[in-house]
Amino acid sequence: MKPLIAILTDFGNRDGFVGAMKGVILGINPEVNIVDISHEVEPFNVFHGAMLLKAHFSYFPEGTLFLCVVDPGVGSERLPLVVKAGGYTFVGPYNGLFDLALKSLGEKPRAYRIEKFTLPMVSQTFHGRDVFAPVIAHLSRGLRPEEVGAPIDYEFTLRWEEPIGEEGWMVGKVIYFDRYGNCITNLPCGNYKEGRFRGQKLEVVSHFLQGERGKPALICGSFGMMELFLPMERAKEKLDVSAGEEVRVKLVNG
Amino acid sequence: MKPLIAILTDFGNRDGFVGAMKGVILGINPEVNIVDISHEVEPFNVFHGAMLLKAHFSYFPEGTLFLCVVDPGVGSERLPLVVKAGGYTFVGPYNGLFDLALKSLGEKPRAYRIEKFTLPMVSQTFHGRDVFAPVIAHLSRGLRPEEVGAPIDYEFTLRWEEPIGEEGWMVGKVIYFDRYGNCITNLPCGNYKEGRFRGQKLEVVSHFLQGERGKPALICGSFGMMELFLPMERAKEKLDVSAGEEVRVKLVNG
Amino acid sequence: MKPLIAILTDFGNRDGFVGAMKGVILGINPEVNIVDISHEVEPFNVFHGAMLLKAHFSYFPEGTLFLCVVDPGVGSERLPLVVKAGGYTFVGPYNGLFDLALKSLGEKPRAYRIEKFTLPMVSQTFHGRDVFAPVIAHLSRGLRPEEVGAPIDYEFTLRWEEPIGEEGWMVGKVIYFDRYGNCITNLPCGNYKEGRFRGQKLEVVSHFLQGERGKPALICGSFGMMELFLPMERAKEKLDVSAGEEVRVKLVNG
Repeated sequence: MKPLIAILTDFGNRDGFVGAMKGVILGINPEVNIVDISHEVEPFNVFHGAMLLKAHFSYFPEGTLFLCVVDPGVGSERLPLVVKAGGYTFVGPYNGLFDLALKSLGEKPRAYRIEKFTLPMVSQTFHGRDVFAPVIAHLSRGLRPEEVGAPIDYEFTLRWEEPIGEEGWMVGKVIYFDRYGNCITNLPCGNYKEGRFRGQKLEVVSHFLQGERGKPALICGSFGMMELFLPMERAKEKLDVSAGEEVRVKLVNG
Repeated sequence: MKPLIAILTDFGNRDGFVGAMKGVILGINPEVNIVDISHEVEPFNVFHGAMLLKAHFSYFPEGTLFLCVVDPGVGSERLPLVVKAGGYTFVGPYNGLFDLALKSLGEKPRAYRIEKFTLPMVSQTFHGRDVFAPVIAHLSRGLRPEEVGAPIDYEFTLRWEEPIGEEGWMVGKVIYFDRYGNCITNLPCGNYKEGRFRGQKLEVVSHFLQGERGKPALICGSFGMMELFLPMERAKEKLDVSAGEEVRVKLVNG
Repeated sequence: MKPLIAILTDFGNRDGFVGAMKGVILGINPEVNIVDISHEVEPFNVFHGAMLLKAHFSYFPEGTLFLCVVDPGVGSERLPLVVKAGGYTFVGPYNGLFDLALKSLGEKPRAYRIEKFTLPMVSQTFHGRDVFAPVIAHLSRGLRPEEVGAPIDYEFTLRWEEPIGEEGWMVGKVIYFDRYGNCITNLPCGNYKEGRFRGQKLEVVSHFLQGERGKPALICGSFGMMELFLPMERAKEKLDVSAGEEVRVKLVNG
């Protein structure tokens, strides 16, 4: 099976940073497939990166290597890591970026700090290119994670608020807005009777055209979370929704 | 010949939706080339997607499989399709998205509704990932379109205004603005003597530097349509052009 | 070794122009890796393109073919070129776009004007698709540059201001802003004691967290140039920096 590297960064698509990483990878292993997940993670927003990785990684085949770089601490003491779990390999900074994906796998991750296989010259501003890209390329050629450096005890460090249970309700909040103006919450998809937003009752529907025009509703969306949306309109702008606003759902047997 | 899948969507490049589709595809067929046409189709704008597909698809080699998703009706009764015509295969929703490309091929398309080869779990919000990606991946491995489901009679449904002939003139309108601020019309490239815009005469030139600085002109552009442009300036903003504004051209032998 | 084509343009990611070029390339050579460097070069800004190419090209393996199109003069008398230097091949318009990369290689480039191997129909508005894409695809299959057309004497034409030496100081200026709001200068990375910006002293640090919060500092950045930055903030907006503003550095032994 041809190895597959999937990349997630906050580098943007304009400055050429992603291209440089791919140049490094293909110089080491030209026989690899490379796929972009996103490079439009909000700059330095580790939580945003963690959320996108968690939403999508499980649709990649077993054995996929994930190169993830949202790295405000580049060049400081934060460790560069290789992490194995659930048949996947994650390469990037040790700052919580992998936490949501790893937790969803529900198995103890094996982690190694990167000490070898970097480029000969390592800058202190671009570890994506100088550290993570060459390491993941070597891993895609068969290098074992334990060969890159010493094992470390992986700890979850990402600040992430789970919804709170409250008398048959789950109380969550808006955490993200997608391209369509839908408001993604931290409420996992599930079997819900109804919802509440700003005191208003929300219907739970199963596809976007099912809701009533002009009325916000809830749906299990593409991130595996409940989304607040407006049929055929941009809920974010139309309702002026802010990140952090409360959304609650009633469990069917709550 | 290595199979080629080209992707056109309104998913954007930020939320990771395109990456998830590619993960699904490469899990089924790692030996496929994948190319992005655009993911910046205006959200839900089927016409915009249809226009971009029509402009570019014929530059892809015969046998190319096009995965196209601009799908406001996802999860509703609109059918998921595989369509064959002119040596190409198109996979996506049955909502007119393929119409302009198919019409330009001038041959009766063979269409099949997708009933099999989806992911085991199909969401009602993301058929790109759960339906179209797995189906196109299987097609790229040799599955025949008639194996995905029942044949249907393909009908053109896209609302699209052709230019109108009027005493030696073709009367069209501005339908799109490209990255450079050029104003793309619905007038096909052809042999024209001159044009008119807001009552003003337009020269027809053959390259962008040929026009006179500060004067709008017409050119056969990269979409295969006549474009209104301003040499070295952004016509859209400079002239404050709106979509729908009339542009007319005089046929050389009109 | 599988051939590698890296692409840099000002085409943007919305209009599908890049997809059409890749369709042409893969129709001629399906066994090639294609990597995007950037398509978000500022429209018509040859200098911006030249700078991005120079920053990143050397991270690609020897033998890489670069397809670069920032081409305000498309269709006019400006020549279409293939240029060889330092084990790399560059294909695109003869307008200075390759100058910074070529100069950094420090070897006389061999250049050929493209006269053959284009598409049968060549538009005067899209040479990326009709001229450069097919030529680079043939080169990736083994065509030799001297087979595409007559050799020409390559001359550097890009206007580019080098920093000026002044009594132990190097006097440069801000030339670009990256995604993070860092202000990239035309001062090459080097061993500097301190800097000056708007009369204020700047510390030279080695990673982004090292600087003092709220105080601008200098760092050797990802483009191989000194960058003015603000720790964890967007220097561009916060300090309202304009392109062209003076930044100077004191040489350690100046």
